[in-house]
Amino acid sequence: MDSGDPKDTLYEEVAHEIRGAIESGALRSGDRLPSVRRLSRQRRVSVTTVLQAYAQLEAAGVVQARPQSGHYVRSRRSLPEPRPLRTSQDSSPVTVSSLVASVYSGCHADAMVPLGAAYTPYGLLPTNRLGKLLAAEMRAAEHRGAEYDVPRGCVRLRRQIARRALDWGLAVSPEELIVTFGATEALNLCLLAVARRGDVIAVESPTFFGILQMLEAHGLRALEIPSDPRDGMRLDALEAGLRRHRVAAVVSVPNFSNPLGSLMPDAHKERLVDMLARREIPLIEDDIFGDLHTGSARPRVAKSFDRRGLVLLCGSFTKTLAHGYRVGWVAPGRFQDRVQLLKHSQTVATTTLPQRAIAAFLEGGGYDRHLRTLRRRIAASMQRLQSAVEEHFPRGTRMTRPQGGMLLWVELPRGVDAIELYRRALAEGITIAPGPIFSARQRLVNFVRLNAGVEWTPRVDAALVRLGQLAGELDRG
Amino acid sequence: MDSGDPKDTLYEEVAHEIRGAIESGALRSGDRLPSVRRLSRQRRVSVTTVLQAYAQLEAAGVVQARPQSGHYVRSRRSLPEPRPLRTSQDSSPVTVSSLVASVYSGCHADAMVPLGAAYTPYGLLPTNRLGKLLAAEMRAAEHRGAEYDVPRGCVRLRRQIARRALDWGLAVSPEELIVTFGATEALNLCLLAVARRGDVIAVESPTFFGILQMLEAHGLRALEIPSDPRDGMRLDALEAGLRRHRVAAVVSVPNFSNPLGSLMPDAHKERLVDMLARREIPLIEDDIFGDLHTGSARPRVAKSFDRRGLVLLCGSFTKTLAHGYRVGWVAPGRFQDRVQLLKHSQTVATTTLPQRAIAAFLEGGGYDRHLRTLRRRIAASMQRLQSAVEEHFPRGTRMTRPQGGMLLWVELPRGVDAIELYRRALAEGITIAPGPIFSARQRLVNFVRLNAGVEWTPRVDAALVRLGQLAGELDRG
Repeated sequence: MDSGDPKDTLYEEVAHEIRGAIESGALRSGDRLPSVRRLSRQRRVSVTTVLQAYAQLEAAGVVQARPQSGHYVRSRRSLPEPRPLRTSQDSSPVTVSSLVASVYSGCHADAMVPLGAAYTPYGLLPTNRLGKLLAAEMRAAEHRGAEYDVPRGCVRLRRQIARRALDWGLAVSPEELIVTFGATEALNLCLLAVARRGDVIAVESPTFFGILQMLEAHGLRALEIPSDPRDGMRLDALEAGLRRHRVAAVVSVPNFSNPLGSLMPDAHKERLVDMLARREIPLIEDDIFGDLHTGSARPRVAKSFDRRGLVLLCGSFTKTLAHGYRVGWVAPGRFQDRVQLLKHSQTVATTTLPQRAIAAFLEGGGYDRHLRTLRRRIAASMQRLQSAVEEHFPRGTRMTRPQGGMLLWVELPRGVDAIELYRRALAEGITIAPGPIFSARQRLVNFVRLNAGVEWTPRVDAALVRLGQLAGELDRG
Repeated sequence: MDSGDPKDTLYEEVAHEIRGAIESGALRSGDRLPSVRRLSRQRRVSVTTVLQAYAQLEAAGVVQARPQSGHYVRSRRSLPEPRPLRTSQDSSPVTVSSLVASVYSGCHADAMVPLGAAYTPYGLLPTNRLGKLLAAEMRAAEHRGAEYDVPRGCVRLRRQIARRALDWGLAVSPEELIVTFGATEALNLCLLAVARRGDVIAVESPTFFGILQMLEAHGLRALEIPSDPRDGMRLDALEAGLRRHRVAAVVSVPNFSNPLGSLMPDAHKERLVDMLARREIPLIEDDIFGDLHTGSARPRVAKSFDRRGLVLLCGSFTKTLAHGYRVGWVAPGRFQDRVQLLKHSQTVATTTLPQRAIAAFLEGGGYDRHLRTLRRRIAASMQRLQSAVEEHFPRGTRMTRPQGGMLLWVELPRGVDAIELYRRALAEGITIAPGPIFSARQRLVNFVRLNAGVEWTPRVDAALVRLGQLAGELDRG
């Protein structure tokens, strides 16, 4: 669907406000919501719109309808957050790829309930509009898109990214940006630019398995820094790690880390950048989820505190516009020349037409409106996912309160083996991401990551009930 | 333009036949061609068609019109081939990237006469047709191309490649192929799969600078094996190298190497594959120019002799269909799993729509017809380029007789510094590729590579006259 249909979003706006009132504590567990008629008058919307909003909140498990009485804020078991993680103080080689591969191939099989991969559902992406723009760009291109956009990629797109960067607290010129095949290529180029085989890279723990795979591919060692489910990488632990190890670079996802959904406070970002600047250590910052904030403000990037050109900032349109376009970018700071050479040596140039289609989309001004809708919908889906975990997962389960992104990190009771849970779920047509792929040493055996970026159907509800049962069986057995 | 317009190609067919007769020796220097009227009767084509063919041959410098007398095969100075190259018997680190970058950025500047990069001119690519197919695939795709094609890429495309591989002597299934961002990504994945930092990789000398850049990016050492301008890599020299060094892999372009345009005979291919199989050394084969043969037969790939799964074959549609689509592929043999994991970790997946557009193009059956036209036109352009070098370059110049591809390798008199020639030419709006970028140690100082894949205009003629003058000045001075 295309975002920006006002009819489509009015009831969602109403639902969003009520959700905000619940989150802020203005409405509490058991409180009665305003009557449909009253809210319709207050908000000057139709009764139907309010009914739709309430129905959505009910579906999300946020409110409960009581016959002849009205709508009430549902009581929540309010699962606690996962416990702090202990990590080794040693660095280690990474050997996660073959496990990731088996998990990943499951995640892409058709007809699965896709709770494994971090995907935005296609229904929330502006696929029609992008497709039309791409076709128009093709027709307008001198050589119908057969041309290269070298060496840094489409300048129109880089201009748009530079404009948006102001919102993240960052002044960057289009010349300081290089378009890449997604954030994945960007991160790889950064690693190649600043590290060589055998070097130690500090990463968050838990961390996105894709980052671990990159370290493995390039023969780099991981130093896993424990991360807080709310604030992200623990800077004291990082500082201790930097004293013990010669660290070639730090890779961090300050805004809505994967899998924790943590948001590093601005003061921490500044401290992180300063701490590394004193030691001349590059920071590779992955901001792929930055646009998907739950709170009202778009968070700053750590690079906004960078005065030394030591932060290499990576981003992408994969999660917000189109997976299959493969368009990301990097602002490599002082490593610009090196990254540009590496881009050329690794893939020469980024495919032309998808870059131009996205540039046209951004130029058209529809991106912010699209993001508003997308954020609202993912937040609704997240709330529904959390409610299902609260309701159906075994006693002793803990889960994060993600502040953005689309991922929920769930700590299962100690006895539950997430790999076994993954296998049993897969056999029943449900994919999840088991904890060990988020650890260089394949620890985190009783954790799973669930994707809230899913189009909610009764099948998804049933899958979560079943997942809870399976986890319960493993807990008891 | 789209290939396959019969009117457009009839006179080219006639010209092609006459060129064949000259190359075979049936028509020799100074011979008179059949009269226009006679050939028109013989071939049952119009007088206009014959006149067009003769005009093309004249423009290419192959024949000469003498007033009141007719058309004659032009006498050629017949420059000798470049001399055998001496290379070091030691391996060495590679430090070519920054020189390549400066050359490369020049090659892409607008308004240059583009004799530097190995480009097919856009006018010879079926850009309109591909664009229409891409738009149609976009409209037909469930999610308008926003979907991923994981893990190996578009199966329709892989089926088409597998079908075509039969022509190269190779039986490979679609499941044994992985789609990549051009041959460049394919080669990088292969290197990552079989070698690690510090390993020695045997390469042809001279070799494509892109391969040298990859070695540099991954910290690999180059062992340069002298290559014959006709037969490619010298297998005796390779064998000697394998005895002296622990070689992790060999990278070779058996079909129309870059820059030599050499074609390794089938017997050599077989010997190469056997030699490496005995030592369990992987062969990374780049077949990017294989479809651009000058002779009538499409050459086999070395992998067709592979019984051990040790050959990793890379190819691409960059030179024959669309530069900016970035679609290549790899058949990694026994390294399939490793390459597939690496593809995922490096760029996740290849952009969806360009793969599908190319698949549709191949399914439509127009590729062979397109290739016939493309080959004929590049051959004509190559002949014109060779004539210009013969006519305008200083005494003592030598050049290759490429058997395919689009590249001419020119040995200038010893005193000429190719980097200086590159600089002076660039200042006058002409790009060339100087010899040192084709060598790990930046030798080959008096060589240049010229791209015949250029749309011929009077400006190109003038550029070649000027290049010859500049080379002459450097020779004298």
